[in-house]
Amino acid sequence: MRKDKGFNRRAILAAPLMLSAATLVRHRSLAQVPQSTPLTLWNDGPAKQAIFEFIRTTTDQSSPKFVPPDERIATFDQDGTLWVEHPMYTQVIYCLERVPAVAAKKPELKKVEPFKTVLSGDREAMAKLTMPELEKILVATLTGMTTDEFVADVRQWLGSAKHPRWNRLYTDLVYQPMLELLQHLRGNGYKTYIVTGGGQDFVRVYSERVYGIPPEEVVGTAGGTKFGYDKDGKPVLTKEPKLLLNDDNAGKPEGIHLMIGRRPRFSIGNSTGDRQMLEYTGAGDGARLMMLVLHDDAKREYAYGPANGLPDTKIGTFTQALLDEAKKNAWTVVSMKNDWSRIFAFE
Amino acid sequence: MRKDKGFNRRAILAAPLMLSAATLVRHRSLAQVPQSTPLTLWNDGPAKQAIFEFIRTTTDQSSPKFVPPDERIATFDQDGTLWVEHPMYTQVIYCLERVPAVAAKKPELKKVEPFKTVLSGDREAMAKLTMPELEKILVATLTGMTTDEFVADVRQWLGSAKHPRWNRLYTDLVYQPMLELLQHLRGNGYKTYIVTGGGQDFVRVYSERVYGIPPEEVVGTAGGTKFGYDKDGKPVLTKEPKLLLNDDNAGKPEGIHLMIGRRPRFSIGNSTGDRQMLEYTGAGDGARLMMLVLHDDAKREYAYGPANGLPDTKIGTFTQALLDEAKKNAWTVVSMKNDWSRIFAFE
Repeated sequence: MRKDKGFNRRAILAAPLMLSAATLVRHRSLAQVPQSTPLTLWNDGPAKQAIFEFIRTTTDQSSPKFVPPDERIATFDQDGTLWVEHPMYTQVIYCLERVPAVAAKKPELKKVEPFKTVLSGDREAMAKLTMPELEKILVATLTGMTTDEFVADVRQWLGSAKHPRWNRLYTDLVYQPMLELLQHLRGNGYKTYIVTGGGQDFVRVYSERVYGIPPEEVVGTAGGTKFGYDKDGKPVLTKEPKLLLNDDNAGKPEGIHLMIGRRPRFSIGNSTGDRQMLEYTGAGDGARLMMLVLHDDAKREYAYGPANGLPDTKIGTFTQALLDEAKKNAWTVVSMKNDWSRIFAFE
Repeated sequence: MRKDKGFNRRAILAAPLMLSAATLVRHRSLAQVPQSTPLTLWNDGPAKQAIFEFIRTTTDQSSPKFVPPDERIATFDQDGTLWVEHPMYTQVIYCLERVPAVAAKKPELKKVEPFKTVLSGDREAMAKLTMPELEKILVATLTGMTTDEFVADVRQWLGSAKHPRWNRLYTDLVYQPMLELLQHLRGNGYKTYIVTGGGQDFVRVYSERVYGIPPEEVVGTAGGTKFGYDKDGKPVLTKEPKLLLNDDNAGKPEGIHLMIGRRPRFSIGNSTGDRQMLEYTGAGDGARLMMLVLHDDAKREYAYGPANGLPDTKIGTFTQALLDEAKKNAWTVVSMKNDWSRIFAFE
């Protein structure tokens, strides 16, 4: 019923499938942007003004819209909102690039589809993979290992895999103005959650280092684990191919209820997958701020979605209907081109 | 596969099924025990000493076992660990006492089992209810309403329902030494989570007021919700009869991974349902403290479990095997009789 952002044919077609050079780059905390004045990377305009106004009215005790600290919950979509989501979701690239390692351990996979196609590197053939085949790849690369093994593997991959356009680590492709916004909200007593259609276990590996968001404040698409004991009798959790939460579209407010149990005061996303989260946020009493990031900067990042007169890429879909709903509900649209003076740390 | 603590025949038999007087008692925060000296309600002895030693070694920066603040996660079972679980789990009492209200809205239930039996008040007949029948009661009383309606109803019930032995609100039956322990851990930078076999949505209604634990730090047995719109077009979440997490036994470490994503440094429980949580906690590196509360004080509370030479009551099962494992793994057993100078606030 729900469409998973992570799986689609066009995305796969666009994917750079070459395994990146295995250069291990030393981790540095991207979350620590110096910030004496808040939102220095935001140009003056309605978006910046809306944020300042929201913070002021919800933290000033004399304001009729004051929000007690305990209730200060902010939720952030990840792909396309906190970091680059083009040409495809980072986690899907991870899964595709994991196939050779998985096949090395299970040689029988080399001869069967869809693994054969992925291993061939034939992009045209890969573009013809069916949804059930793509799901087989996700299951093979995201389940069956212990949670500790998964963390170690993702960490290693993130330390070497590079984005094809900038030839930089994926974790370098974080939007600096959003790091400022996260810090500004936290500095004003807000708990800043990630609420992503991406895998919860995947994002938790780097969320603290990259965004300053601890694992327990990451809500994402989640599979079950199975408690058991390894050969030495040590308790381990093994990742299972059992979907517990598809944290996209209606799954976002459902995931927020499951994992947080409170309605957010602030939500930001960039696609139709965030619509219900913003609606749910806006349905509460008192001050609320709902925002959408518009990708309209082809020069510095990407421009996509019907709002820009561009064909629907199926990644980060920002439809006319979403824009209409934003206008109707007074959601604030953030233009990457106009509202952000800088996008990346490396600019 | 997993045994749910909440459903069992003997518990139902023991249940006081009279609807309590509807006296609404003003809520007060039980979590705010004044605490200039920590653990004043704990007698000197190995349990108190183990807690102090754990806090000292994990918070002293010069200690080789120092734990960075971000990693300070503590997990507490609820029933029988934070509050009274006899003669039956409070949430099961809630469900049984909700049956008349549910039947009033759906009169067709009055003529069918198991509702007919519950409405009759015939305890002997109720004791013969089968597991599937008991599950029907839980489904009828815990699902089908919006999350907001559920919160309002639980809040009202908690304000009036009384425990048969003490004739006090259930939220008055919280162990004061455990409130001290929660505060002491929080005062030392620990996040204190509840990890309960009870319903997550149920416990979240009162956790902040009663334990000082916000909803987002309550992990429990959780069902799905469904996002939709009410007749006025307002987004709502409706509680569904779909089990996502059975947070008991192996489900506890699985729930901790799902909801927190970090291995706890400290865990405390009181039954075989907490065994895997304590094992999982103990399997990590560095300083860890695992504790079990032993109900051995029939005079002030209850004494139960084979460890006391008493028949297994099926509630809060503390078996000889669990006691053996505690000894083997150096888990600290807390004797309610010997370690706690006071149990309740009203003593």
